[in-house]
Amino acid sequence: MMASSIFNDCSSSCTLPFNNKIQLRFHHLGQSVHLHINPTRPYIGLRQVASLTTTVAMTSETSAKVIDGKLVAKQIRDEITSEISKMKEAIGIDPGLAVVLVGDRKDSATYVRNKKKACETVGITSYESHLPEDCTEEEVLKCISKYNEDPSVHGILVQLPLPRHMNEENILNAVKIDKDVDGFHPLNIGRLAMRGREPLFVPCTPKGCIELLHRYNISIKGKRAVVIGRSNIVGMPAALLLQREDATVSIIHSRTENPEEITREADIIISAVGQPNMVRGSWIKPGAVIIDVGINPVDDPKSPRGYRLVGDVCYEEACKIASAITPVPGGVGPMTIAMLLSNTLTSAKRVYNFV
Amino acid sequence: MMASSIFNDCSSSCTLPFNNKIQLRFHHLGQSVHLHINPTRPYIGLRQVASLTTTVAMTSETSAKVIDGKLVAKQIRDEITSEISKMKEAIGIDPGLAVVLVGDRKDSATYVRNKKKACETVGITSYESHLPEDCTEEEVLKCISKYNEDPSVHGILVQLPLPRHMNEENILNAVKIDKDVDGFHPLNIGRLAMRGREPLFVPCTPKGCIELLHRYNISIKGKRAVVIGRSNIVGMPAALLLQREDATVSIIHSRTENPEEITREADIIISAVGQPNMVRGSWIKPGAVIIDVGINPVDDPKSPRGYRLVGDVCYEEACKIASAITPVPGGVGPMTIAMLLSNTLTSAKRVYNFV
Repeated sequence: MMASSIFNDCSSSCTLPFNNKIQLRFHHLGQSVHLHINPTRPYIGLRQVASLTTTVAMTSETSAKVIDGKLVAKQIRDEITSEISKMKEAIGIDPGLAVVLVGDRKDSATYVRNKKKACETVGITSYESHLPEDCTEEEVLKCISKYNEDPSVHGILVQLPLPRHMNEENILNAVKIDKDVDGFHPLNIGRLAMRGREPLFVPCTPKGCIELLHRYNISIKGKRAVVIGRSNIVGMPAALLLQREDATVSIIHSRTENPEEITREADIIISAVGQPNMVRGSWIKPGAVIIDVGINPVDDPKSPRGYRLVGDVCYEEACKIASAITPVPGGVGPMTIAMLLSNTLTSAKRVYNFV
Repeated sequence: MMASSIFNDCSSSCTLPFNNKIQLRFHHLGQSVHLHINPTRPYIGLRQVASLTTTVAMTSETSAKVIDGKLVAKQIRDEITSEISKMKEAIGIDPGLAVVLVGDRKDSATYVRNKKKACETVGITSYESHLPEDCTEEEVLKCISKYNEDPSVHGILVQLPLPRHMNEENILNAVKIDKDVDGFHPLNIGRLAMRGREPLFVPCTPKGCIELLHRYNISIKGKRAVVIGRSNIVGMPAALLLQREDATVSIIHSRTENPEEITREADIIISAVGQPNMVRGSWIKPGAVIIDVGINPVDDPKSPRGYRLVGDVCYEEACKIASAITPVPGGVGPMTIAMLLSNTLTSAKRVYNFV
């Protein structure tokens, strides 16, 4: 039964035991690998196949390339700064971004502050309206309408979430389509979905994910991509973008019965579910590229804040299997604001026909 | 090495040959099954695994249930007829559908004639504008504008394709969103893509596909669905619809590297590519449900017309493996017009707030 001599770097054995299963055992790269096949149910479970794969992969010494979103975002901000200074010189115009903040959520206030700060660093003039939690929907609509009419404002951003008593759909739809730098208007989403149509703006976070792939020369065309999560602001538009770039896309969500198996088929994984460490090493095909959108706080008594931020993907396991991966924080996070600045510049250039 | 005696209904052998591969050979349900494993590349190709599956499945005697689109379309037309007669009785209104035909394509003229005939049978008043091939885009837009303003018209349909000198996007966008019974407006597509939003109309052919699944009690939630083709009028909206019903959707297109493997993972296959007999038996997971949107003419000297119509799926092979399948013709085809009538009725009911 032993036939190790005929293999170059593998030894192997094959047994036919009493439990109606075929067992294969061989050595590969110094690892003992077991494969069980049940001939009464000859469809070999992907779970078995893939656990085999990962067993082998996890023993290898390779470590994934870290996709440095902080660095790329900085490069993009520098490019935007230079474009804006050229534009100012040529036509005396600088782009303007208006942010509408409703209520007193601390996290929202932080996001808005960061966006304003980022605007300053690249030369975008920022405008802000801060409305009280208990204001009416009409007051928000009036505020949006004012920015819609203001020619010095090229982008309008309504910070989400809105207070519960407001209709988010009504408010987002009120933003003039050519100032919708968030790209959330259904007309933009429809154009994103349709071949031969061009959206005016692409939502910032998924655009940032694709930009990272481009800047790291990771090819998308013909690749199998899995998007985990189907939110309107990340998962769904990310899937549409990957499809526009000719990936073969599968979308996994809370109703998917075997997310692990399907994810394991992907060359490119974009995860945006908000579940800390949900995607384990065993979910990942060796050599896959991972873009982790999740930013999840988990308890950490060792941290001075009492928590730390982790992604949807278990980084420690994934970085041993993937060929490239975004860290959390410092991956997709910084890209979102960079793309917002980029969309605002695009909008201003479009208004003045500046190329 | 032989151990056939320990298996109940299978005989098996295992050899370790010189070509660095492990071969497994066993008998299952009277079929000889071969499995080759290369231990230097221990990830077993899905192709191997699945061909094993289909070998076994194809020997079974089962035959797929035929999904009778002609019959279902008739049921739907009857339901629409009854609803329209109730509406007429209650508020004295019948729905109106306007069709805009440009040029002299014979196939387009046939489609328009069939649509008008279908309108008559259910009690929808049809209006038609037939413009010459060499008319201007402005004339088409003027015609659409007339129907946009006409309160007796609840749906407007521009027959595609338009002559080459016209901008299809401009013309389709001119149709008032609440009369866009074709559902092709990007605002409708955007709403279809977004969770928590409702499109005013769903494109007729993909809506017909899903309706067939519903009427045959085929559950979609949590199932793996593969859509082959990503056209704006069928593939893309079909994928969005399946996703709305909580399927796990993968979209295959001309750039997909391994369409056969991916299709074989699907519980539900919707094919809309226009390639006769492209999807073979070996592409299909045993028990899958197949909705074949393709209607492709192939030469057939035995037919009086010299050709016959076939689907994208090789019916003779598929019906032995699938659990249910739509025939061509008589499957999805009749559903498209039925859904157009349904959308027109929905539009009229919405205008008069009739439930």
